[in-house]
Amino acid sequence: MGYSFPDGTNISPELERHIRQLHAVVGNAVTEGRFIVFGAGSTQLLNAAVHALSPDVPSTSSTAGGGGGVAAGVVATAPFYPIYELQTEYFASVDFQYQGDTSLWIAGGNSSKTIIEFVTSPNNPDGKLNEAVLKGPNFKAIYDRAYYWPHFTPIPAADDGELKIFTLSKLTGHAGSRFGWAIVKDEDVYNKMLMHMQLNTMGVSRDTQLRALKLLKTIMAEGGGRTIFDFGYQTMKSRWEKLRKVVSVSKRFSLQDVSSHYCVFSGRVRESSPAYGWLKCEREEESDCYGVLKAAGIIGRGGSVFYATDRNVRLSLIKTRDDFDLLVDKLQKLVSAEQDEEEGGGDGNGIEQHVANVTEYQPLRRRM
Amino acid sequence: MGYSFPDGTNISPELERHIRQLHAVVGNAVTEGRFIVFGAGSTQLLNAAVHALSPDVPSTSSTAGGGGGVAAGVVATAPFYPIYELQTEYFASVDFQYQGDTSLWIAGGNSSKTIIEFVTSPNNPDGKLNEAVLKGPNFKAIYDRAYYWPHFTPIPAADDGELKIFTLSKLTGHAGSRFGWAIVKDEDVYNKMLMHMQLNTMGVSRDTQLRALKLLKTIMAEGGGRTIFDFGYQTMKSRWEKLRKVVSVSKRFSLQDVSSHYCVFSGRVRESSPAYGWLKCEREEESDCYGVLKAAGIIGRGGSVFYATDRNVRLSLIKTRDDFDLLVDKLQKLVSAEQDEEEGGGDGNGIEQHVANVTEYQPLRRRM
Repeated sequence: MGYSFPDGTNISPELERHIRQLHAVVGNAVTEGRFIVFGAGSTQLLNAAVHALSPDVPSTSSTAGGGGGVAAGVVATAPFYPIYELQTEYFASVDFQYQGDTSLWIAGGNSSKTIIEFVTSPNNPDGKLNEAVLKGPNFKAIYDRAYYWPHFTPIPAADDGELKIFTLSKLTGHAGSRFGWAIVKDEDVYNKMLMHMQLNTMGVSRDTQLRALKLLKTIMAEGGGRTIFDFGYQTMKSRWEKLRKVVSVSKRFSLQDVSSHYCVFSGRVRESSPAYGWLKCEREEESDCYGVLKAAGIIGRGGSVFYATDRNVRLSLIKTRDDFDLLVDKLQKLVSAEQDEEEGGGDGNGIEQHVANVTEYQPLRRRM
Repeated sequence: MGYSFPDGTNISPELERHIRQLHAVVGNAVTEGRFIVFGAGSTQLLNAAVHALSPDVPSTSSTAGGGGGVAAGVVATAPFYPIYELQTEYFASVDFQYQGDTSLWIAGGNSSKTIIEFVTSPNNPDGKLNEAVLKGPNFKAIYDRAYYWPHFTPIPAADDGELKIFTLSKLTGHAGSRFGWAIVKDEDVYNKMLMHMQLNTMGVSRDTQLRALKLLKTIMAEGGGRTIFDFGYQTMKSRWEKLRKVVSVSKRFSLQDVSSHYCVFSGRVRESSPAYGWLKCEREEESDCYGVLKAAGIIGRGGSVFYATDRNVRLSLIKTRDDFDLLVDKLQKLVSAEQDEEEGGGDGNGIEQHVANVTEYQPLRRRM
């Protein structure tokens, strides 16, 4: 098995064709006249996109010019997927720098500096259908569309933007296969991303591409590609309703509101059924919601992981059924105890225990 | 299929165990007490190693200090595998910069700046068993051991160094699977490389790891892991001898000398049977040896690809048998024509044709 396909790239044309077909069935992305780049999950593509959208800044040792200009700034809006910052900081380049929250740049439109905005839509952790905040000639958006599939959200329209990234991991659950793709409008950006993939890993493992092709063929063989999404939507809707029902009777906890939109895939108005509950502890003294849940045996991800505060915790609805049932069960116990407390006048039992967890060390692994 | 194995890493312990077993059989690398990191081929590991060996230089935007110091310099000795320079330049970091040929730094030992030296041994393109040129506390070597297997070279001793990188692609030929591994002595460097893999691609595709495991199991099942190398050595030896025989009667072309060493794998003195012939055009006017061969239908890689000159051309001995036979056949015709010329007094026919190719544009793809 050699390095490249007959066209000289490392991209299987057959797999690319199936990806375009799938988007046509779902209606979540315009692919006509666009280029497709493969990556090892969306992870590799995120940084490739940052590289490709950044100006070429000559390093101090370089004698040749080639481009010039100042390094791009990279921003995101909290709460956001932490890899954006961790990755951008780790691969600290002369061409780009992580520069904090989007809000700092809204008034800064008079600068000619390139600002690259990460937009996750639906958002991880809170499921919102975010749009780019920064608009203008020097602002460029990378749309992370990992969750833009009918099991998680209504599809209001096909993403027609410049650069959007999808991944197998939230489509079929094969996160370990490390397969994602970017759909790119500009040929120059596409070529830069191809070069990135070549110099980083010489493209995506051909074994992985074969696995992805097999998965997409299986999806397309059932109901012309619709069956998996009908199943996925029913599953997520049912889980979301169970979770919401438990939390709805609580004053101590609340969940994010979700929106409804007309969905081009299903042909009707649908409510979101997000991958994650973004749970909030409403009691003023329970600012460490992560610790509160942990004391009850529920391991979520504290909001600080997502550059918010630990008053929110992300609860995953996309674990195994057993794990999800356990989550609902444990939350139910917490909510029942809250109601018993209220009925009994409330002795505050358990709160000291929660506070003991506030200062718990949160290793980097929790961020990923 | 999720992200991680039970120990929290993305590294299959079963595959790691098989890699250690294989090195024990071959005797080409010390693995006891060493850490192993997986990568998408050696390609991804090369840059991960550069990152891990570089000091942590605060970027100008960063407020936190953390490490400090000047960026590392990265060097290699020509002729060398071009990815070292291309990759280091492309991923231009605040922590390291590509800084040209090793020779520039031999006298520069008075500096405290970290210099990272790429050492390919056996070397690509010329098969030499290179060793690090730079010695001293601020010099660090990355040994690229892609070709350090008994089919290409005698194994004088197990590599006992700080950081060595191997790849499946030159072991079994599965280049497209993108699987390699680094063997690392220092735990801090190991942890940095793990972090690199996590933030770059979240580790190596589990499909690829499974494929690699299957391949290593197959290797180990035959003759306790020895059979593939006996076969590979016989194949390479036979090819090398064929190539050398054709060139030996020529005054126009020559091949590199190869060395003999005691080989711990075979238990006797053996001559190298390199993956590539490093062919030289001996006629003064044929400085574009790449063009000379191309005109005769032989596509090698010009020496300039490897930061030497095009007076040398790399010829691959590790293509399919048909491709190799064609190569020998075409070379034989060139050499026969040379002898006819000599017998007939030499009318210089064909030389103009070769010169026309001298200025041919050499795209980047030829470097990779």
